[in-house]
This record gives sequence, C-alpha cells and structure tokens, in this order.
Amino acid sequence: MFLSVTTAKRHRHLEVNPKIQLENQQAEKILVLPSSTEVPGLSTIVLNNPRRRNALSLPMLQSLRRDLLHDVKSRELRVIVIAAEGPVFCSGHDLKELSSEDDVKHHSQVFELCAEVMTLIQKLPVPVIAKVNGLATAAGCQLVASCDIAVASEKSQFATPGVNIGLFCSTPAVALGRSLPRKVALEMLFTGEPLSAHEALMHGLVSKVVPEDKLEEETMKISQKICESSKSVLALGKATFYRQITQDLDTAYKITTKVMVDNLTLRLEGATQLQFLFCSWVFAPAPEL
Amino acid sequence: MFLSVTTAKRHRHLEVNPKIQLENQQAEKILVLPSSTEVPGLSTIVLNNPRRRNALSLPMLQSLRRDLLHDVKSRELRVIVIAAEGPVFCSGHDLKELSSEDDVKHHSQVFELCAEVMTLIQKLPVPVIAKVNGLATAAGCQLVASCDIAVASEKSQFATPGVNIGLFCSTPAVALGRSLPRKVALEMLFTGEPLSAHEALMHGLVSKVVPEDKLEEETMKISQKICESSKSVLALGKATFYRQITQDLDTAYKITTKVMVDNLTLRLEGATQLQFLFCSWVFAPAPEL
Amino acid sequence: MFLSVTTAKRHRHLEVNPKIQLENQQAEKILVLPSSTEVPGLSTIVLNNPRRRNALSLPMLQSLRRDLLHDVKSRELRVIVIAAEGPVFCSGHDLKELSSEDDVKHHSQVFELCAEVMTLIQKLPVPVIAKVNGLATAAGCQLVASCDIAVASEKSQFATPGVNIGLFCSTPAVALGRSLPRKVALEMLFTGEPLSAHEALMHGLVSKVVPEDKLEEETMKISQKICESSKSVLALGKATFYRQITQDLDTAYKITTKVMVDNLTLRLEGATQLQFLFCSWVFAPAPEL
Repeated sequence: MFLSVTTAKRHRHLEVNPKIQLENQQAEKILVLPSSTEVPGLSTIVLNNPRRRNALSLPMLQSLRRDLLHDVKSRELRVIVIAAEGPVFCSGHDLKELSSEDDVKHHSQVFELCAEVMTLIQKLPVPVIAKVNGLATAAGCQLVASCDIAVASEKSQFATPGVNIGLFCSTPAVALGRSLPRKVALEMLFTGEPLSAHEALMHGLVSKVVPEDKLEEETMKISQKICESSKSVLALGKATFYRQITQDLDTAYKITTKVMVDNLTLRLEGATQLQFLFCSWVFAPAPEL
Repeated sequence: MFLSVTTAKRHRHLEVNPKIQLENQQAEKILVLPSSTEVPGLSTIVLNNPRRRNALSLPMLQSLRRDLLHDVKSRELRVIVIAAEGPVFCSGHDLKELSSEDDVKHHSQVFELCAEVMTLIQKLPVPVIAKVNGLATAAGCQLVASCDIAVASEKSQFATPGVNIGLFCSTPAVALGRSLPRKVALEMLFTGEPLSAHEALMHGLVSKVVPEDKLEEETMKISQKICESSKSVLALGKATFYRQITQDLDTAYKITTKVMVDNLTLRLEGATQLQFLFCSWVFAPAPEL
Repeated sequence: MFLSVTTAKRHRHLEVNPKIQLENQQAEKILVLPSSTEVPGLSTIVLNNPRRRNALSLPMLQSLRRDLLHDVKSRELRVIVIAAEGPVFCSGHDLKELSSEDDVKHHSQVFELCAEVMTLIQKLPVPVIAKVNGLATAAGCQLVASCDIAVASEKSQFATPGVNIGLFCSTPAVALGRSLPRKVALEMLFTGEPLSAHEALMHGLVSKVVPEDKLEEETMKISQKICESSKSVLALGKATFYRQITQDLDTAYKITTKVMVDNLTLRLEGATQLQFLFCSWVFAPAPEL
C-alpha cells in the first residue's frame, strides 16, 4: 500500500481493521483513512493505484464495497470522501479483465458488482463526497455521478469514451442520465469527448468547482459542515430524498410529511431513536450492513 | 396589516373580500393586492410579516391557501405574483409551532397544509410567479421551487438549513429535487449552505435573475406578457404540462396531441368553452375551488 | 428543390432515391444530402423552404419521416444532421393547415404525425444532431429538443410562442419539459419569450454553442467522431440509453449490466451480431424500418 507523505500528514488512522488493511495491502489498491485530525467523523477512501489509473478492477471494486460498508459500522462516521492518488481520478473498468480470456460469467460479475457499489453509495446512511482532481472516465465518471456530492478542481475532466473502443458506456449512462441534461449526456456518450470541470458544474454533474489548491480546503469545509449535524437526521434525510425522488408529487409529499413529523418527534425526544427508525424502513429488505 | 407606501402606490385594491381582509388584519400576515393599475389581471400576494421573517406559520399557510384560491374565482385574474416584505422572502416554518408543547397531530397539520399549498400552486389555472428579493430558506425555498416561474434579484439566496437544527428539510427536498440537479440539491440539504441567485439560475431553481432595481420591472414584464394571452389557453397549457411531465414519452404525446386538437377547435370556435374543458378533466377529483 | 452553392460544394449526393428526390422536388421542402466527402457516413437533411420559414407542414413532416427512415436503411449511414436553409431553422407547424377550413380529423393527423416524427428520432439507430443557425420556434423548438445532440450558433434563439396566438405549445412542451429545468420551460411556454443560445446551453436544451462561422466545423467534428465508432455499438448504446432512463435505478442497472456483457461478447466476437441483437429487442414491436 502506497501512502503519500502529504496524505499521511493530513490524516490519522484512528481505526483500522487489520483484516481489511491486510487485504488492501495485498490488493495494493485502496487506502482507507477512517478519520482525520481536522475533521473527526470524516473517513477518506483513496483510490490508490495511480500506475493503473485507479482502474475499477474486480479487487478494487471489492475493496471499495468493503470499505464503504466497513465505515458504516463505525459509530463515529459522519461523512465519506472518495479521493484518488495521481492525475487520473479513476479510469473505469480494468480492460484486462474484460478480455476474451475471461468468460461471460466473469464479465457479468464485474458489471454486477460495479452496479452494486454505485447503488450502495446512495443507500449508505452518510453523505458520500467525490473529491476529483483529474480525469474521471467511464465507470470512473459513473462513480463521480453516483456520489451524493462532487467537488472538483478546475483541471478535472469527465468523459465516457467506451464507444471509441467498441464498448458503449451503458452502465455509466445510468448515472450520467440522472445527473446531466439528456443532450449533454448523449453527446458525451456518443463522442467520448470530455466535459471540462466548469461544464460539469454548469450541467450538474458536480456541485462545486474550485482551483486545485483549494480542493482540499473546500472538501474539508463541506465535510466539516456535515459532521456538525446529527448523523441520524442526515441518514433519515438522505434515505428519504432518494425514496421520494422517483415518486409522483402527491406520494412524495405523503412520504416526506410523515418523515418530517417523525423527525420532529425524535428531535424533541432525543435523536437516539432515529437510527432505529431509519434502519427499520430504509433498508427493507436489509442489505448486508 | 402593514402596507408600505411604495407598495401601495404601485397597486390598487380593485377587489377585496372584506372577510379575507379582516382575517388578514387579524393574522397580520399576508397582504392581498388583487390587481394593479399597471398590469390588470395581476394579483400580488405579499408575505407581510417581516419581523417574523415571513415564516409560514399555520395562520400564514391558511391565509396563503385562501388567497390563492380566492384569486382563482376572480374572472379577471390572469397571473399571481408571490412577493414579500423585508429582507427575508420567507424563512420556512414557524419553529415555535414545532416545539414540544404541541403534539404530533398539530405538527402533522402544519406539514400537511404546507404540502397542500405547495401542490395547489401547480393546480391553479393561472401561472404563479415567485418574486424573490432576499433570503428564502427551508419551506420558503420550497415555496420558490413550487412556483411555476421564479424571478430573483441578484442579492437573493436560497438555502435548506434544517439539518443544522436537527430537522432535515425533507418536504422542501420534494420541490428542490424536482427543480435542481441532484448533487446541487443534496449539497444544499446536507450542509444548509446557500445558493447565490446566479447559482440558482444556472441550476434552474429560478428562471430569471436581475439587479435588485430591475426586479419589479422584470416581474411586471413577464406578468404583462402572460396577461396578454387567453386565460383559458394558459389554464389548459399549465394543467397539461404538469399532467404529461410525469408520463412516458408515448403517453405524454397522446395526451398533448389530443389537447392540441381541442385547443385548436376551441380557438377557432372562440375560447369560451375552453374553461369548461379545463375544469372537466384537470380537476378530477375536484379540489375545493 | 433549391440547393445553395455553398451547400452543394460541401456535400456530394452519393445515394439519392429518385422517388424521394422527385417527391421532394414537388414538395420543394427537404433536401436530403445522404453523404459528404468530408465525413463519409454523415447524412444531412436540410429543411429547405426558407420562404415559409421551414414550417413543418404535413408534406414537410411526411418528407422528414421518409428521409429519416430512408437513411436508416443505408448500411453506410452513421449519423444524421438536421439543418436548415435561411435565417429561421424551423417555425413549427404551418398555421394555414390549422385553420377552420380543415376539420378535426385533419388537425389530428398533423399533430399525430409530428409526435411520430419526434419520437422516431429517438428510435433511430443512429445519433441525430440538430444544427441550428437561427430561430427555432414551437414545433421547430420541439424538433431541436427531440434530437439526441444539438449544436447551435450564438445567434440562435429558441421559443414556444403558441400561447400568443391562443394555441399553447403543449406538444413542444413534452420535449421541452424533458430537456430543460421546469421553471425555464414554463416561462418559455407561458410568455413565448425566446431563450438565447447561451441560455439554451446553460439549461441543457442544446449541448454546444459556437460562433456562427464555427457551426459547420463543430458539427462536422462531432459527426466525424461519431462516424469513427461502430454503428452497431452506437445503435445499442442509444437504444439502451432511452430504454433505461425512464426506469428506477435498480431496473436501469439490470438492463444495462446485461447490455454491457452482450456488448463485450460481441465486441470480442466481432460486431456483426450486434445489429441483430439490437433489432431483436429494441424495436419490439417493430416499427416500419
């Protein structure tokens, strides 16, 4: 596991599951930074295989799923940041794994796990922030689009170039089509040409763009703000948001009106029961948390 | 009821229901300006409790519902503007009403009425314009997002800071999630940090931003333009828009193709029957108009 | 059929169906430029009735449908550009056809065919690019919104002014409401006022805006890029995009995960079977291709 000095200086490993760390060392892919001195409650997951452009290989996806779920079990956890080492945030799937040497079953496993991880991000009870400083392509672009919040440096770029190698970015298109205006998403998908950071902001793929030297500060500021709020309330709010957004207006208001009343009651009685409330209906059927 | 001189000068009370005026005086909350000399057909509803930051208390919500519905009955009415006195457009719910002194039933009543008013705006047969000159937060931001059109001055700001006091803005999120890109909405909801007017425009929460000294002029210009068109045609168009937007493409085109033919027939025959057509299917089951 | 010298110079008629050309000459409406020397695989359909502001009359819509479908049968075809002669890209329906002289049945035919053509654009197995250099109004604006990609010159404008003549743009609203933030679409529909090209870009109605003298170059660049990719892969990707976008997230990922695996298999085996795969499920029930 490679740990850059600057990163190490900024973060402390307050809580490391030895088993996970071992696996990560073997995989040499992901660096879990479960907390920081600056922002207690923040866990940073660093895609840490810059030589492979942080490709989402099967081991990388498995680590990412494990680390996302591991963090959830931590009582202290309030917010997750997904960052990356090197000039490429994430280049998408590992094309080596998608060669003819592997069979359909293996290919299915890769895409299914990828979809599971992307969907998991929305299901997690804490906000997940993509911190992008570089190029995010294909499933890497999908990863950014799948996070709740995305902060990008001005030099960042976003593309879905699968079409250029005969593999249309159909799974990334799921996330892109829900984050971007249709024409912008289709031009990206049909041409493979990148969006600049400012275009990504204008069109809603990211929620904030800052100069590169302000990226850490801005991400910390947002994280800090989130950490100051009740974990239970954020969990309830996040789950409710994704639950209502696909409903018609009347149903959405029925769901959220009830949540507001529950939220209020538990706020007045103390937030301890919120976590129970949250778990009882958000994760039905329950995932492997 | 407080009526600022400048406002009084710009508007004439051509039609005031004495009962409503009395109730408003008691509530000292909303100022109904049913018509104006400049733009006949325009009714302005002014949130008029700046000392309470125009909070949407239960009486305020009741007045707002009554005033929105009252206007509808007026034959002359073509467009409604929702404006506000003071530096805060609307601060959302009155937190005093959401304290432990009141029970769940009371809390439910507040949120249900709020959802009803927000939904009512879309159901009204005339366009409703938010004219924002200041801060709109929580349910106040929801009110802006729920209007058909929103014009804001450059100094305006929009936020959903409920999370900061342990009450996630889940009902405002219904309107925000349908007006803004997902990441922008979630960053607002998770951090409580405000959008500037220009950010709100870029992301679609408002449809126009102008310097403060042009806000009145721009709102009047849009209102004037609307008043020049057939009330019946606007009513049919508005209802059809909200009816088709949640459907799949083929169903949407089936609905609107029929509406176009009906619209055309009645345009040629005279617009008098359009109102009947509109009432017969838009409001089924009929609300209390 | 009018063919401007500059256009003629840039395009070669490699493949012209004499019957279609004859009909077009009679109709004097649409110029089919099935291929170009610069970009083999590009077919340009030129709305070519500038004196009538390229109105979408019934014959124009019939020609457009025929030309869109004709192109599809061409094995060489990779991308379609819809362009226009004159300062107005397209002014929408021909109001002469919507007069009282014609009956309801005729009016229905016009709107139904229009909806069919707009929907057909999404169903075509090749990307369709609107190349806009001027004013696009009503069903002309709908045409732009219905294309997969839209490139506009800076002087272009977009409006839905039907409300001003008592015929609300309800069918254009279907396409606008799926391309633009709700408030922006409604302000356009309620007032008839135009969006500038840059506003259209900011809000997602078009995907690119360039100076007028760069419009041809930019459109060719995008077309060229598309033509470099596999036709089968693009067809599969386009169909999959529109299929998944209306589904819930889990269903969308199920659909696309399967498509990715199929895409990969056929990429490795050679792309010849992709066309078959595409035809077997995308067009069920099969349209008249």
